[in-house]
Amino acid sequence: MEGEGAIGAFLDFVSPNDTFGEKTWENAERKMVEDTLTSLLEKSAVSADELDFITGGDLLNQCTATSFGCAGFHAPFLGLYGACSTFVEGLLLSSILLEANTARLGAVLASSHFSSAERQYRFPLEYGCQRTPTSQRTVTGCGAALLRRARKKDENCLAVVGARIGKIVNNGVKDANHMGAAMAPAAADTLVSFLKDSSTTPADYDWILTGDLGAIGATLFCELCAKENVDLSGKYLDCGTQMFSPEQDVHAGASGCACAAVFTCGRLFKTWKTLRKNRILLLGTGALLSPMTLQQKQPILGIAHLVFLKGESGCSM
Amino acid sequence: MEGEGAIGAFLDFVSPNDTFGEKTWENAERKMVEDTLTSLLEKSAVSADELDFITGGDLLNQCTATSFGCAGFHAPFLGLYGACSTFVEGLLLSSILLEANTARLGAVLASSHFSSAERQYRFPLEYGCQRTPTSQRTVTGCGAALLRRARKKDENCLAVVGARIGKIVNNGVKDANHMGAAMAPAAADTLVSFLKDSSTTPADYDWILTGDLGAIGATLFCELCAKENVDLSGKYLDCGTQMFSPEQDVHAGASGCACAAVFTCGRLFKTWKTLRKNRILLLGTGALLSPMTLQQKQPILGIAHLVFLKGESGCSM
Repeated sequence: MEGEGAIGAFLDFVSPNDTFGEKTWENAERKMVEDTLTSLLEKSAVSADELDFITGGDLLNQCTATSFGCAGFHAPFLGLYGACSTFVEGLLLSSILLEANTARLGAVLASSHFSSAERQYRFPLEYGCQRTPTSQRTVTGCGAALLRRARKKDENCLAVVGARIGKIVNNGVKDANHMGAAMAPAAADTLVSFLKDSSTTPADYDWILTGDLGAIGATLFCELCAKENVDLSGKYLDCGTQMFSPEQDVHAGASGCACAAVFTCGRLFKTWKTLRKNRILLLGTGALLSPMTLQQKQPILGIAHLVFLKGESGCSM
Repeated sequence: MEGEGAIGAFLDFVSPNDTFGEKTWENAERKMVEDTLTSLLEKSAVSADELDFITGGDLLNQCTATSFGCAGFHAPFLGLYGACSTFVEGLLLSSILLEANTARLGAVLASSHFSSAERQYRFPLEYGCQRTPTSQRTVTGCGAALLRRARKKDENCLAVVGARIGKIVNNGVKDANHMGAAMAPAAADTLVSFLKDSSTTPADYDWILTGDLGAIGATLFCELCAKENVDLSGKYLDCGTQMFSPEQDVHAGASGCACAAVFTCGRLFKTWKTLRKNRILLLGTGALLSPMTLQQKQPILGIAHLVFLKGESGCSM
């Protein structure tokens, strides 16, 4: 579905099935991580032992797709859990590891898998449950980026030149099929406070992207920003609305750790230069919950981390 | 049990029961996180809005004890997943965030809860399952530390002056009741390579601590180090062997994210000065697995992160 969707043309590899030659969905996701890291190293002409760190995570309990997928590379590993904000949390932390001169070269990745996520968070696929109109489809995919300390200007690279760590926002949403509503207030909080602190407005950027708010969450996000006098017209795109085509009937759009990761490493990295998108704000949006917290009637918490990517000078990614 | 154990005298607060006034163990763990952070801020005379970040994690699926426990503090939040290595992973990353001048003040925490961990990873407590001799007891507790950028020498503070990000080590262990064996090779790999790269030996340190290898894992760790000509005699202690008293019959010792966190924030912080332990290597040890990976016959992966804590000069924690 990802290959046939709106993002299809930007993907390096599309599997004809969701098992990737493995017997379980969880192993399929682990295999995606391995293959993506292998492909990243090949494309970058870097060997695994040159990596000062790999960081990332996924949605599986105990983030096992990432740890098992990374184990064979024998590189220093930092596990993250930021739900679907993980990829941007990884970019943020990696750029600081490089900035502090504690590392020269690192990889960031995030993965998710529709079938492993459905089994863990919702219902076994075999039940054939109907999905509500506000629900989103978890992206089956993995995105990985290489970050290196800026040495000289490289016009083919985007640089991480700013970031903001998100705060947890509790909006009281308890519907696990309405994640966009749970995450939108966190995304608005992070973006509005970043713009305020940096004394900038959307006019200062070419693109403002959110990870996986979906169609409904993206609308809520724009409304919340408008209330704070932040007008996103003509600048804003949610990765969750850009993964699948309308005919694919995924209701409110795409979600999952892979949503922001695949959009960033696929469409963004491959088109920013031709589209002249030189100043980009990328917000990773995450819903902090577990099946257990839902059963125990807890709300879904939202979080959103932000990185400012710049294409004019320096080289980081 | 923690209050009655070997660490009891060093704890700021001991609850007479494991529910902390909540109806579920998961909420009890969330409450521990809240109370620990509140106590940390009070003891440090710091308000939550002065925190540039909180980072940490726990063992619950999707690390919900930490995210729900931190939500009310409205501070920038970075979620980590390093299993029982989380506390040291947090110290490592926090010290780099401070070093890079991206933050001035941050909090690191890690929690675990015996009953929530048993329910999730092993058997419902109501079954009354017998435990194998190699098994360890998850510590019910939470430890939190405040880190600030070094401004001037403070003789009451320990400084993070070095660190090493661990690599994932697959030793093929598949017994979920034998975590020490799964983690010991990773701990040895991290310590031996740190000593080699820093051209130091155990003689250069006053204390070398591992997080939660337990009695059997600690013995294996010493053997693996000895094979690499690293003699730990008189320098080494595993936090997992120091939490409970022998009469408490916890088999191979203690484990859990809270093991290293509670030992560090309790016994280490409160005694290093009087014991003249000025140069300490602290290794957080983690077993990367989930009930799902065990059911799918995957091995248990080990990881160990290291921080070098120094008490002579500077101020960081």
